Amino acid sequence: MKPLVQNITNFVVMNVTANALLALGASPIMAHAQEELDDLLEIASALVLNIGTLDTPWIGSMKKAAALARKRGIPIVLDPVGAGASRLRTETALGLIQIQHPSVIRGNASEVLALAGNTGQTKGVDSILRPEGAEDAARRLGQSLGCVVVASGPVDFITDGSAALWISGGTPLAPYVTGMGCISSAVIAAFASVEASPLLAAIAGMGVMKVAAELAAKKAAGPGTFQIHFLDALHNISAHEIEARLKIAGA
Amino acid sequence: MKPLVQNITNFVVMNVTANALLALGASPIMAHAQEELDDLLEIASALVLNIGTLDTPWIGSMKKAAALARKRGIPIVLDPVGAGASRLRTETALGLIQIQHPSVIRGNASEVLALAGNTGQTKGVDSILRPEGAEDAARRLGQSLGCVVVASGPVDFITDGSAALWISGGTPLAPYVTGMGCISSAVIAAFASVEASPLLAAIAGMGVMKVAAELAAKKAAGPGTFQIHFLDALHNISAHEIEARLKIAGA
Amino acid sequence: MKPLVQNITNFVVMNVTANALLALGASPIMAHAQEELDDLLEIASALVLNIGTLDTPWIGSMKKAAALARKRGIPIVLDPVGAGASRLRTETALGLIQIQHPSVIRGNASEVLALAGNTGQTKGVDSILRPEGAEDAARRLGQSLGCVVVASGPVDFITDGSAALWISGGTPLAPYVTGMGCISSAVIAAFASVEASPLLAAIAGMGVMKVAAELAAKKAAGPGTFQIHFLDALHNISAHEIEARLKIAGA
Repeated sequence: MKPLVQNITNFVVMNVTANALLALGASPIMAHAQEELDDLLEIASALVLNIGTLDTPWIGSMKKAAALARKRGIPIVLDPVGAGASRLRTETALGLIQIQHPSVIRGNASEVLALAGNTGQTKGVDSILRPEGAEDAARRLGQSLGCVVVASGPVDFITDGSAALWISGGTPLAPYVTGMGCISSAVIAAFASVEASPLLAAIAGMGVMKVAAELAAKKAAGPGTFQIHFLDALHNISAHEIEARLKIAGA
Repeated sequence: MKPLVQNITNFVVMNVTANALLALGASPIMAHAQEELDDLLEIASALVLNIGTLDTPWIGSMKKAAALARKRGIPIVLDPVGAGASRLRTETALGLIQIQHPSVIRGNASEVLALAGNTGQTKGVDSILRPEGAEDAARRLGQSLGCVVVASGPVDFITDGSAALWISGGTPLAPYVTGMGCISSAVIAAFASVEASPLLAAIAGMGVMKVAAELAAKKAAGPGTFQIHFLDALHNISAHEIEARLKIAGA
Repeated sequence: MKPLVQNITNFVVMNVTANALLALGASPIMAHAQEELDDLLEIASALVLNIGTLDTPWIGSMKKAAALARKRGIPIVLDPVGAGASRLRTETALGLIQIQHPSVIRGNASEVLALAGNTGQTKGVDSILRPEGAEDAARRLGQSLGCVVVASGPVDFITDGSAALWISGGTPLAPYVTGMGCISSAVIAAFASVEASPLLAAIAGMGVMKVAAELAAKKAAGPGTFQIHFLDALHNISAHEIEARLKIAGA
């Protein structure tokens, strides 16, 4: 049975997120109505909360979903899109963390810094910093929350507060395609639905993303063709290819 | 004049549904505000109701649209996405059916079973059963409602409660792309806007989908490239090609 | 620093709009929560208001965003999707214009006619007229509002009420892809964020769209492959190519 990944995510990336999860062999559901969250989290194996196009009713749904996931021990991946760009986003992300510490928080450097209390580092939803600038913030956040934190970008920094590593690779085309970060969060959730260690799930998820992006970029002539070949690569990629290409370094 | 197909559909598939309808030569509109449904259903030739990302306000819009379509004799295609996965979805789909019997209901096997009163057959929005397992349920549903029921999957079962047939073909890639079912429902609606028989509209719609998918799969290297070639195929397909490739069997 | 373009746009085109802005080198944000508009318009350089899937809460957000943009002198591009197709759309577009005259209004011929007070020219969101039929309406609208009006289609008519010109080119495939108009509006906004003259921003935006569409069509086999090559073209296009291919005629 394919693992069911329940997503409360933003309007911009719903389609590509569902496609990435399907390509990978997971079964996505996108649902936000409070009335059905109890039924859906009964059958889901992981939950993605992504605040990319948040508003009051959707924040209510995310909070309810977080509480239900906590009750049932379902891993949550939080994607704090745009944290730091508006108080609403920063506060919503922090509020969701308080209801249940997510298993994994994945954001860009600016978002990780915002959650760790550093302000003024964000402009919109695209980071103006590289993950290297968020290493300390990610470590502190991971340690204080007891969860895995991923600061993604040209290189991805992954830590659970003590262990830490870098994943490099990917392609310079990625920042020209919307939703690559959001897809990463959902891919981590897919791995978290079958792998008990959030750290290993995050490494597997970010690793697959980097290698698939690298393979797709070879066939792409720009961000349009890249997206398409990326979904193909996610679907066709083998464990052997991932092992052969994955570039991990200790931190 | 291109037929206008009014859609109240889910966020995940809005873009691809609009693109499929345009590729086919129809004119899609996506609108959910109750205040404008009366104006839009004045000019629309068919209505798609898809509960894939339903919530209370959107359910209200679907109910109002169903009532307006009934008043004007506009054919409705109902897509009960995830019926059986949550009580909210099952009850919403059944409630919409009560307002106006749709011309066509198209779902996967699990969804058709859920509407026919068989529970426990669904996990999320992807079916865990093949259409063969929903044949009896589809027949009963078609007969009791006096409408066409399509249980789609690797083979599609289509019935109006008495006549029944199977369409085979397509591609094993289809389940790895989100929205192929939702697109089918919209394509049926496009045919229903110009063909008085809902049974013929459903056969035409599902037949075009199967043949276009088959043609697209020949050019695809995975689910990403498949999606793109599928839209090309929908646009370029000729009546001759459909006739030559369509695989229909009596049931 | 990439200019941040804040979009309150419709669900159908959010993904492709974000991708087009990224491909072009801008930084898109899609956000509609009233609570965060003040923060986001503090950092945004342009605002897109697109009424394609409007409803009461989103209209409220658009009005608030328009007022905030006015206060800060941020250029607004208004896309009156479906104006004329429902009273709600026509009235909402006119209401937004009253709060702050947008820098640029871009619509198809039917929409421009509807805003200029000509009714009965629209069927749904696709125009049934060519821009030539909206030339007078666009001129009157531009003059009375003191803003730039673009009536786009097979040829684009652009005027600020006194100066006026036509841009030709593009591809007959464009009407078979959803959101090309909506993307144009966002692309104009990207140019308006770095170019003080709304007329020049509109010409640059529509010109890039036409040339990129023309280049993409050469590689496309239908509307599916066209979309993908279009994003590549937007990303790869050079100033030299635009100059060499742009077809502008006085009006």
